[in-house]
Amino acid sequence: MTALKEPVQTADIQTALVPVSVVYGDGIGPEIMGATLRILAAAGAQIAPQEVRMGEALYKAGHTSGFAPDAWDMLRQTGIMLKAPITTPQGGGYKSLNVTLRKTLGLYANVRPCRAYAPYVPTHHPDMNLVIIRENEEDLYAGIEHRQTREVMQCLKLITRPGCEKIVRYAFEYARANGRKKVTALTKDNIMKMCDGLFHTVFDEISAEYPDIKAEHQIIDIGTARVAARPEAYDVIVTLNLYGDIISDVAAEVAGSVGLAGSANIGDTFAMFEAIHGSAPDLAGQDAANPGGLISAAALMLGHLGQHEVAAKVQNALLCALEDGMHTQDIAGPHTKEVLGTQAFADAVIERLGRVPQHLPAVTAEAQAKEMPVRQPTTPAYIDKQLVGTDVFFEWTDSGRDPDVLAAILQEAQLRNIPLKMITNRGVKVWPGGLPETFKSDHWRCRFQSDTPVKHGDLLALLIRVHDKGLDFIKTEHLYTFDGEPGYSLGQGQ
Amino acid sequence: MTALKEPVQTADIQTALVPVSVVYGDGIGPEIMGATLRILAAAGAQIAPQEVRMGEALYKAGHTSGFAPDAWDMLRQTGIMLKAPITTPQGGGYKSLNVTLRKTLGLYANVRPCRAYAPYVPTHHPDMNLVIIRENEEDLYAGIEHRQTREVMQCLKLITRPGCEKIVRYAFEYARANGRKKVTALTKDNIMKMCDGLFHTVFDEISAEYPDIKAEHQIIDIGTARVAARPEAYDVIVTLNLYGDIISDVAAEVAGSVGLAGSANIGDTFAMFEAIHGSAPDLAGQDAANPGGLISAAALMLGHLGQHEVAAKVQNALLCALEDGMHTQDIAGPHTKEVLGTQAFADAVIERLGRVPQHLPAVTAEAQAKEMPVRQPTTPAYIDKQLVGTDVFFEWTDSGRDPDVLAAILQEAQLRNIPLKMITNRGVKVWPGGLPETFKSDHWRCRFQSDTPVKHGDLLALLIRVHDKGLDFIKTEHLYTFDGEPGYSLGQGQ
Repeated sequence: MTALKEPVQTADIQTALVPVSVVYGDGIGPEIMGATLRILAAAGAQIAPQEVRMGEALYKAGHTSGFAPDAWDMLRQTGIMLKAPITTPQGGGYKSLNVTLRKTLGLYANVRPCRAYAPYVPTHHPDMNLVIIRENEEDLYAGIEHRQTREVMQCLKLITRPGCEKIVRYAFEYARANGRKKVTALTKDNIMKMCDGLFHTVFDEISAEYPDIKAEHQIIDIGTARVAARPEAYDVIVTLNLYGDIISDVAAEVAGSVGLAGSANIGDTFAMFEAIHGSAPDLAGQDAANPGGLISAAALMLGHLGQHEVAAKVQNALLCALEDGMHTQDIAGPHTKEVLGTQAFADAVIERLGRVPQHLPAVTAEAQAKEMPVRQPTTPAYIDKQLVGTDVFFEWTDSGRDPDVLAAILQEAQLRNIPLKMITNRGVKVWPGGLPETFKSDHWRCRFQSDTPVKHGDLLALLIRVHDKGLDFIKTEHLYTFDGEPGYSLGQGQ
Repeated sequence: MTALKEPVQTADIQTALVPVSVVYGDGIGPEIMGATLRILAAAGAQIAPQEVRMGEALYKAGHTSGFAPDAWDMLRQTGIMLKAPITTPQGGGYKSLNVTLRKTLGLYANVRPCRAYAPYVPTHHPDMNLVIIRENEEDLYAGIEHRQTREVMQCLKLITRPGCEKIVRYAFEYARANGRKKVTALTKDNIMKMCDGLFHTVFDEISAEYPDIKAEHQIIDIGTARVAARPEAYDVIVTLNLYGDIISDVAAEVAGSVGLAGSANIGDTFAMFEAIHGSAPDLAGQDAANPGGLISAAALMLGHLGQHEVAAKVQNALLCALEDGMHTQDIAGPHTKEVLGTQAFADAVIERLGRVPQHLPAVTAEAQAKEMPVRQPTTPAYIDKQLVGTDVFFEWTDSGRDPDVLAAILQEAQLRNIPLKMITNRGVKVWPGGLPETFKSDHWRCRFQSDTPVKHGDLLALLIRVHDKGLDFIKTEHLYTFDGEPGYSLGQGQ
């Protein structure tokens, strides 16, 4: 991990302490944070932790976002955060704090190094050493959900071109700065040809600017399976948010333990570092949790702050402890000599500060020190956009859910220049020419489309006529062309 | 696999051949289908294959669905299909044939047994023996995609209550009929509280009807990681379409080879059987592909037709071939005695028809013979639905994308009783009280919400006033309450 921009605090790094926001978290959070901060202090990290309160207690105090109102100002002052895991209370109305943090602060890149510590931590894949660069702000995690009929829930998957550009470019810059040779993109663009297709297109565009890095693309299901079975074949992986969420856990698990992996969340002006595991409320207060993930995250943070010597010192002490068989219960195996609690494990790391591992590859400050340039997404050339129709969605259960009946009603309402072209149910065309076997929910998508551009006013006139028929229209999705290309998919069976 | 309903053809099963639709497919498809049909004939399967043409050639002949127009009638006549993999041509406008087949014919359950063949096929998980029941019709695979701004693509994730009920009930009935003890549901309901939350809710409801089967729920990222690392801990898994797609491949891969796994696609009146792998065009014509996946699929089909004796005979012969080290190249390992081509492998299976394996557990006809009752989804009690507002989405790039400016314009347009409550960008609240760090795409969601029920006519009046401001409104999502509960999520940071 290297500094992305000049962090404001690094100029006088040898003489002053860098303020760092610290969140103690919920569940096992306070224990592993305490252990980690003790190690950082003993290692000589030039940081001044400042506690920021967020998490379960604030949710329960009525803050649906999990933050105290002054948290943003405190975070903005430091620009950097070390965070223990948070518990989001069960039940409706609470937003995921992690998602809000990432998105509000523009932490677009989630960086997860996953490596084996064989033979000291059991794994089937002793040679694996990959980094997952996960898009961190978009996709289904926008959290835009609507229940529109009695039977149907909807969530919007949103993918943006600038979002794709930022994450793909980050992946290639990361590969170059860290001496890695290959970037693999994972998408499901054989199904989601527009959303995932955009990511793939941007990947192809940007990879052409990095001829020194090998670029390849795989379908996510096959790619995840290969990461599970042959992770040593991967180097850097870049992918969309949901896929990255899944594959990050797969990679950490087959590497040996989720408990040892840290991650960085990188934005243009802010960065957050955390363990990849959760708050494990059932382990809380037992001095049983593995602080290794948060220690790894803290080392990533020190590298980001330019404190490469201290970062290497912490990582090497952690490797020494693992080599010496000093293990917490979650990673116990044939090479374990002592099963330690949280604080005893931290003590074992502290005792080994200054040593370098004998068998596992040692970390050097120099290997981490390359700069990564930051480039903003391109502003695309002018794109001609034309409105050509709309998909109107209805809740409708009359007439035995016969699509021909619905079509007849809508044809009475349609405007001459924007006729009804198609009805689908759960994406499958049911009119014209539907099949009786197709299951029909109460959620109907009805496409009104013109051969020539129309105006928003035309669509409003259409909606008024539809409304006059007494139908419950629940949503619309307008149809556009972009430089003459349709901006909408066909119905299945169309 | 057992017969779901009385297949019309099984009454005179000992005397007449059952017509079965057969698709030879693309790439390696014709080779593995030829091999498989030879084995079925030699084993005495009482089937009459009838070729149905679909796939690449039909796409290229201009059928965007990949079907000839008469295909549906042929399929309906047999009600059952054995299908080799298909190649969907690259480029826009082609719909996935598999998705269309599954959804048009109501094949709601994708059933994928995944087991190890250790030590004959290398695997780290010799004891794994699980079945994945994947919802097969809904989710992002509805394929409803729209490009609505110059920067943003959207795909709709749709989850229905009847769809959840059908797949969850199928999973529990499958577990009971096949002597399995546990069903694990995998969702991401900590993020998608409405869509995935619905699946989880239905799972909890239905699992209560099956006290003899253990029920548990895991988050998909953790669950996928555990399947990758410790698959022997799972028995039956039930999950949504996209997650099931990924985890099915993970399970098959860690079991040893994707090339040996078959799957069933089950509907109320139709069933389709196929290998889980793709058409592998680069292997085509080389007699190098493994027909094992399609052979396994054919055995599932025979069980579905009630031809349990023949099904067991085919499976046992396949197990014998594996035990004897007769392997195709994709599963070659330390126990391989001969690396065979596609047809020679089929010959090796045919030579072993009538034998039972010596080390791997043999398959018996009796173990497959339990009936599974079919129940239709419930019709829920009346739900009171009230319209309370709408989310209107805009493409907007003026005024440096300052949300306060957009809010001011919209407040001029709003109706007194349906005021502007919130603006989000990529799901993050940017008004009121947004943060300057938040990245803004050109895609804005603006929530107009009333404290009391409103009418569709009110929303149309609002849209007309918004339109008069010259804004490009690209879609709407109406806000409803259902029995008083909000049918919409909060904005992130709200």
